[in-house]
Amino acid sequence: MNSLPTYEDRLSLNQISTKGWSLPEAVRGCAEAGVPAIGLWRDKVAETGLARSAKLCRDAGLAVSSLCRGGFLTAAGPAARRAALADNLQAIEEAAELGTDTLVLVVGGLPEGSRDLVGARAQVADLIGELAPHAGDFGVRLAIEPLHPMFCADRAVVSTLGQALDLAEPHPADRVGVVVDSYHVWWDPELAAQIARAGAGGRIAAYQVCDWTLPLPADPLLGRGHVGDGHIDFGRLTDLVAGAGYDGWVEVEIFNQRVWDAPGRETLETMKSRHLAHVVRR
Amino acid sequence: MNSLPTYEDRLSLNQISTKGWSLPEAVRGCAEAGVPAIGLWRDKVAETGLARSAKLCRDAGLAVSSLCRGGFLTAAGPAARRAALADNLQAIEEAAELGTDTLVLVVGGLPEGSRDLVGARAQVADLIGELAPHAGDFGVRLAIEPLHPMFCADRAVVSTLGQALDLAEPHPADRVGVVVDSYHVWWDPELAAQIARAGAGGRIAAYQVCDWTLPLPADPLLGRGHVGDGHIDFGRLTDLVAGAGYDGWVEVEIFNQRVWDAPGRETLETMKSRHLAHVVRR
Repeated sequence: MNSLPTYEDRLSLNQISTKGWSLPEAVRGCAEAGVPAIGLWRDKVAETGLARSAKLCRDAGLAVSSLCRGGFLTAAGPAARRAALADNLQAIEEAAELGTDTLVLVVGGLPEGSRDLVGARAQVADLIGELAPHAGDFGVRLAIEPLHPMFCADRAVVSTLGQALDLAEPHPADRVGVVVDSYHVWWDPELAAQIARAGAGGRIAAYQVCDWTLPLPADPLLGRGHVGDGHIDFGRLTDLVAGAGYDGWVEVEIFNQRVWDAPGRETLETMKSRHLAHVVRR
Repeated sequence: MNSLPTYEDRLSLNQISTKGWSLPEAVRGCAEAGVPAIGLWRDKVAETGLARSAKLCRDAGLAVSSLCRGGFLTAAGPAARRAALADNLQAIEEAAELGTDTLVLVVGGLPEGSRDLVGARAQVADLIGELAPHAGDFGVRLAIEPLHPMFCADRAVVSTLGQALDLAEPHPADRVGVVVDSYHVWWDPELAAQIARAGAGGRIAAYQVCDWTLPLPADPLLGRGHVGDGHIDFGRLTDLVAGAGYDGWVEVEIFNQRVWDAPGRETLETMKSRHLAHVVRR
């Protein structure tokens, strides 16, 4: 059989999409809505406690699709580098304890006052090299997330899937992979080629979805829409990801004040129907 | 001699930077400030009249570095395609009459209601193929401008220099080139390679500058700053452009309400000092 994944049973709630919910509320919400997996955030895990968070997910029968997030590797100076390493080592251990093999990395923007993009990118490569063996020790994979180029200065100097793969490929595929997030990569003229490359190398660690909607809000971090509300062709994108052999979770990650203001259950129901309408392949 | 261009005498005002000025005012402003070239906008030219605009520039001894802009090639349907072709043919003639060999193309975003990015990009390639011979007839070069990926949905489905070069290279280099605009390309991990490629092919038709400043404003079109106000390393970028053999104009193109609210003379003086401080090579 060469049948491609349909993703029908692969929906996951990234818990930022229900930002108003605590971790226990999000776990209960997923269980009640029949959503089989959840992507957790470290601040929410800390609020509830690591061991208790892990137990809540296990007891509810929920898979943990990822932990968000490590990274922020670009701050200048030895002390800042050491602090970034320490924080990421802790995140790796948290991921392992939570039962996920995927730690999402948002690598960080330009250091304060710096215009040295080349240098910041080199530092990211260095620190990923230092972290990768530790991730391997814990059975966790570092999932480098390219962010949309509009976040290059302030959030992530990794801006394309191709660049993320360049960073990942020096390391074993089970230690360093990449995130395919629709919002960040949909515009890329190299999208099909780079997803194929990622799949061929076994590097797709996560597939996250939300839509590109306009106008951008005053805070451009919060402009993401439910799947189907915007300009992204999820049929094509999902076919590329499926064709590359990815059969993991489809995690819905939405930063949007209107979505956050909606009741969590409503968000989950919308997610489910949009997943069926736009993402599931038949 | 293999000396690289210093750009000291290559400063040009793109007249959008002094949006409050009419074309005659902008021409006079440049002449008084000792700025030797101007990039014109079609709406401003239309306001003043084509022949008179051309004469004003000639009489002031100003070079016309470019005409902004043609493009908007993505609208769906035969009638819209014909209208886009007609408009661009007219823009080519206007460029020739104004004495510039450079017509900047902003190719347009997704057609209304469409998510077919692949199709929109294919249509752009088609229509550039139709326009290129006409541009050649008039001694004008189509300068494809990749816009920052945040404008992919609504303004330009050409998002990287590499993609612009893919579109340009099927045509003779004196008919179709690319624009290197700092704001749109600074984040690109492929920047050095693609500028070198553009230079090797003789494809750099224009070098436009302004800075990436944060936060993005409510209208993200208007977030561009004076050179030196933001996060772009103009030393590196200019060295790449110079190393690629570009010895043309350095056109300052700023979309920013605060800059537009400033007196035009002040804008020109700021441009001149920033040009010396950040762009000129020594």
